[in-house]
Amino acid sequence: MEPRISIVTLGVEDLDRAARFYEAMGLKRHRIDDGVAFFQMGGMILALWPRRELAADSGLDSLPAFEPGVRRPASALAYNARSDAEVGEVLAEAEKAGGTIIKPAQRAFWGGWYGYFADTEGNMWEVAHNPAFPIDANGSISLPQ
Amino acid sequence: MEPRISIVTLGVEDLDRAARFYEAMGLKRHRIDDGVAFFQMGGMILALWPRRELAADSGLDSLPAFEPGVRRPASALAYNARSDAEVGEVLAEAEKAGGTIIKPAQRAFWGGWYGYFADTEGNMWEVAHNPAFPIDANGSISLPQ
Repeated sequence: MEPRISIVTLGVEDLDRAARFYEAMGLKRHRIDDGVAFFQMGGMILALWPRRELAADSGLDSLPAFEPGVRRPASALAYNARSDAEVGEVLAEAEKAGGTIIKPAQRAFWGGWYGYFADTEGNMWEVAHNPAFPIDANGSISLPQ
Repeated sequence: MEPRISIVTLGVEDLDRAARFYEAMGLKRHRIDDGVAFFQMGGMILALWPRRELAADSGLDSLPAFEPGVRRPASALAYNARSDAEVGEVLAEAEKAGGTIIKPAQRAFWGGWYGYFADTEGNMWEVAHNPAFPIDANGSISLPQ
């Protein structure tokens, strides 16, 4: 795993309301607009996505909780890999390190290759290869031009 | 608000166990070691902090929830400002944009100046000025050398 976080996804109850909030904060929403809101944040990306979709996609509902009330965190981090193969490598590394594979590497509904692991504390990481979001030599990720 | 996320803080149940996990993933823990674990991730920082301290510091317990089970997300984002004054400006901007001030700008226990807001969906942002963590012209933040 290279030292980077590619995407921070915040789960939202109302996508339009949330997007308006961040636009009012001065951020510029990306033209991709199919049920998600993306904002380029320097070398990373902030994503807003309905909670129920985030939970369903990442399998949060099936996670054990350390205490009541923390079963379904409203966010997930993403590590974007440089290839389909690296997705599998990072997931294997996470399992070896003591994490839990939540979703094995598989075809993503958005066309790429991805999976999820949870760290030892139940925090979620998506590991994804998305050729449409290029990664430069320094690890910075960009939304499509 | 400039387009950046300075720090992603993950709440953890067991700090040592969590830090070992991320070290096993190949990340290098910073020498700062007073009840927190920091990892430099390119131009941003990943922090691990006990859930109970994160909740107490950010006032998560006092947040209204959209549904049972999401009252206490295990993470918070941080926007690091360039001055004490900018902390107040960003908090004011968040309130004007429809967010909620969770903790007004005040002296931080770690010596800087900070506050918290929640976006319209209840996601937490710390806004902080920490002169020990320099921010460059591009918005990248660095742990102390």
